[in-house]
Amino acid sequence: MDTPKENFSEWYNSIIKDARLCDLRYNLKGFVVIEPNAADVMGRMYRIYEDALELRGHRKAYFPSLIHEKNLETEKEHVEGFAPEVFWVTEAGKNKLEERMLMRPTSETAIYPMYALWINGKSDLPLKIYQSCQVWRYETKATKPFIRTREFHWIEAHDVFATEAEALAQIDEDMQMAEDIIHDSFGIPFIFFKRPQWDKFAGAVDTFAADTLLPDGKTLQLPSTHNLGTNFAKSFGIKYMDDDGQEKYAHQTTYGPCISRIFAALIAIHGDSKGLILPFHLANVQVAIIPIIRKGNEEKILPFARELEATLSKSFRTKLDDSDNTPGFKYNYWELNGCPVRIEVGERDIDSGRAMVARRDTGEKSQVPFEELPAYIEELGKQINDSLIRKADSDFAALQKSADTLEELKSALDSGGGFVKVPFCSDKMEAEACAEKAKDYCSANIRGSKHEGEEKPEGKKCIGCGKEATIYLYAARQY
Amino acid sequence: MDTPKENFSEWYNSIIKDARLCDLRYNLKGFVVIEPNAADVMGRMYRIYEDALELRGHRKAYFPSLIHEKNLETEKEHVEGFAPEVFWVTEAGKNKLEERMLMRPTSETAIYPMYALWINGKSDLPLKIYQSCQVWRYETKATKPFIRTREFHWIEAHDVFATEAEALAQIDEDMQMAEDIIHDSFGIPFIFFKRPQWDKFAGAVDTFAADTLLPDGKTLQLPSTHNLGTNFAKSFGIKYMDDDGQEKYAHQTTYGPCISRIFAALIAIHGDSKGLILPFHLANVQVAIIPIIRKGNEEKILPFARELEATLSKSFRTKLDDSDNTPGFKYNYWELNGCPVRIEVGERDIDSGRAMVARRDTGEKSQVPFEELPAYIEELGKQINDSLIRKADSDFAALQKSADTLEELKSALDSGGGFVKVPFCSDKMEAEACAEKAKDYCSANIRGSKHEGEEKPEGKKCIGCGKEATIYLYAARQY
Repeated sequence: MDTPKENFSEWYNSIIKDARLCDLRYNLKGFVVIEPNAADVMGRMYRIYEDALELRGHRKAYFPSLIHEKNLETEKEHVEGFAPEVFWVTEAGKNKLEERMLMRPTSETAIYPMYALWINGKSDLPLKIYQSCQVWRYETKATKPFIRTREFHWIEAHDVFATEAEALAQIDEDMQMAEDIIHDSFGIPFIFFKRPQWDKFAGAVDTFAADTLLPDGKTLQLPSTHNLGTNFAKSFGIKYMDDDGQEKYAHQTTYGPCISRIFAALIAIHGDSKGLILPFHLANVQVAIIPIIRKGNEEKILPFARELEATLSKSFRTKLDDSDNTPGFKYNYWELNGCPVRIEVGERDIDSGRAMVARRDTGEKSQVPFEELPAYIEELGKQINDSLIRKADSDFAALQKSADTLEELKSALDSGGGFVKVPFCSDKMEAEACAEKAKDYCSANIRGSKHEGEEKPEGKKCIGCGKEATIYLYAARQY
Repeated sequence: MDTPKENFSEWYNSIIKDARLCDLRYNLKGFVVIEPNAADVMGRMYRIYEDALELRGHRKAYFPSLIHEKNLETEKEHVEGFAPEVFWVTEAGKNKLEERMLMRPTSETAIYPMYALWINGKSDLPLKIYQSCQVWRYETKATKPFIRTREFHWIEAHDVFATEAEALAQIDEDMQMAEDIIHDSFGIPFIFFKRPQWDKFAGAVDTFAADTLLPDGKTLQLPSTHNLGTNFAKSFGIKYMDDDGQEKYAHQTTYGPCISRIFAALIAIHGDSKGLILPFHLANVQVAIIPIIRKGNEEKILPFARELEATLSKSFRTKLDDSDNTPGFKYNYWELNGCPVRIEVGERDIDSGRAMVARRDTGEKSQVPFEELPAYIEELGKQINDSLIRKADSDFAALQKSADTLEELKSALDSGGGFVKVPFCSDKMEAEACAEKAKDYCSANIRGSKHEGEEKPEGKKCIGCGKEATIYLYAARQY
């Protein structure tokens, strides 16, 4: 297999197929089958995100997948953004429907008419609701499994507040949740950018998006959170009676962690030339036991290995690989599948009372007394996770660059990609032409300014128009 | 509020609205919004079922929601059964699609073409995969929230085996899982019926379905599990190379726990005239703390109640209701919402060191020292669950009846409904006319024979045709 850094695209396509993450042979263009090896992990990622949302006061709901055409038309910018990419349901059974329904590309227009009914007074606020669901978009760009497909799996949280201050605090909470989960738990580094005005979510006041970098230095957007201001509230009539007796429009935010894409980043960032590397708590099989059998000693090895499997299963997702394959084949198989810990059980191991334990991420091996295995693996799992995060952070740090001209930007992107900090005249609509220029010149995409803020450029010129720069923006090539 | 037994339909409609389970004002016919009070509980039910499936060797997958028209046409009986009720996607963006896609009404025709690719040898079997998803059916009958809507939420498991014996063992496992979860954990009694041949899943050899009874004595179908034999395997080419070097068709089963419907049964069976009654482990808020505040003692009561909330939150989903409403209003509110345990904290309680604890199901109250509350509530939760199951079982047992003629059947159904055991000439296709007769005469639906088996009728006549009866079938009025 290729290594992810040297030839990412080939590596990604191979791993998808070899580790059986996704089957591309489904007979509808742009739709793929997510196989158990991926779905198991995604299921765990879903639960972690759902629990975090609930801990922070969100409640689950299930809104319909289909939306009346007239709902979509309610918010002007939103319909312009989404109408070109929706799937339309026009018939049912043998009947032509009187009115067209669309499959949700995102759920604002399904949810907000209900919010208008549900919200009357201040006691109805804040309202924080999420749903885990699929959405459908008629993508015309080339699809790539987990990264861009016509159906994808995400969570969308839609929150409503009385005041702008609360909405902005929610944006911060959304970002902190991403830090806690996507970085600290999944080991995926990212930067939250405030998108330039020309690249906002259709209908939003501001869009903040977490961008990571894949091993080829191209960026992939992970969750985004949007300050909708009162734009949708005005279109959908989401109002509350304030203490002063005045009816006021509510402030809204929407947050969209796309589990399919986060999974793509997970496998791309941690994987190596042998295959997947999964964080310990996300792996389907956390511990694989490989019996080293020689002719005649099955009776000694297998019962021992089975007992070990039973013991370890009490604490970990453990699998004894008692297939007919050779140990070497099994090592490769479990490495390809990203199993974090492998235990070899041969005659010598049993006699010496110590198992050979190999960790997937570094390949290091240790001899560990059988009775100490549960505690050892527990600790090893933490070490593996820590080490994955540290390595990912260090790779990510090495891809932070800066440039003062289009030429420098091109050269930075050509040599391994990454985020390139560039001086820009503005991040408002009037600067869109400068972004276009960067795109045309070197396929650079302007991701926005760092949400956390930073110093202003001093005496620098915009890389697009050459005027006085007022802000640092970040450029990258994107997926 | 009505009581569920006396006027079930009114009661059900009220509880849906008053406890904010479902909003029927969504502007697409047959589609409803499942609100947080229901979705929270359904989310827990999903996780319990998913964990049970995984424990029994199923793995999660995500298959596309859309299906190519030609897939549906592959299995002849299946297409006849489902074509009249599918939603068709015919346009995307501004384009008319060259080929129609249907929204899955169930996923056999999305999944089985992939299984044909995935299964080659015996080592690929058994294959046990499930997905948690929505399905869409263009229902023309009147819709009823959670019971019959055009979009519903279920789990579908699709299993493949080398032999018929393994497939039949899976059917047993599916039924046992229903017993463990739906009865033992959710407290919903049911009988697994083998459906008569005229009422099978389209394309199946045999259909087994768990039917419960709602308080009005009408039956509601909960999970069904189907022995597909080799019918679909032949249509879709799902074959494996057997040890004898022969290529053989695989045996398949499919299992469909419909979470929306199980939720409907849950609230209908346990609820009372005050509102919802939820099992302890499924409740959104397990413990509600109601401060009994009198003018001037807020400073004493509220900090104490907040500390109690913090303590109990370590073990239970706990909510201090510090809204401005009166205690009486709060009691009613939490009773309506099915909160299993209510704790009242007033001045006298604090002074005496004992809280007043009320259980929702029986209304019983006890005084419990504050420091003993965690252990007491833990135990009370179990008692509540046990008591809910016992009560539901006893109500269910009282609705088991028998009849030897259509007149007796009608009279049994007219007096409170239930399952009525009736002698029948057969459960094969030739007896469908007898079932039609029962339906026309008294709206009785023939649910099938008890899967667990029972004695044959001796000297009895079929209630339909009057010929010698060969089997006992069960009749009920259905949702």
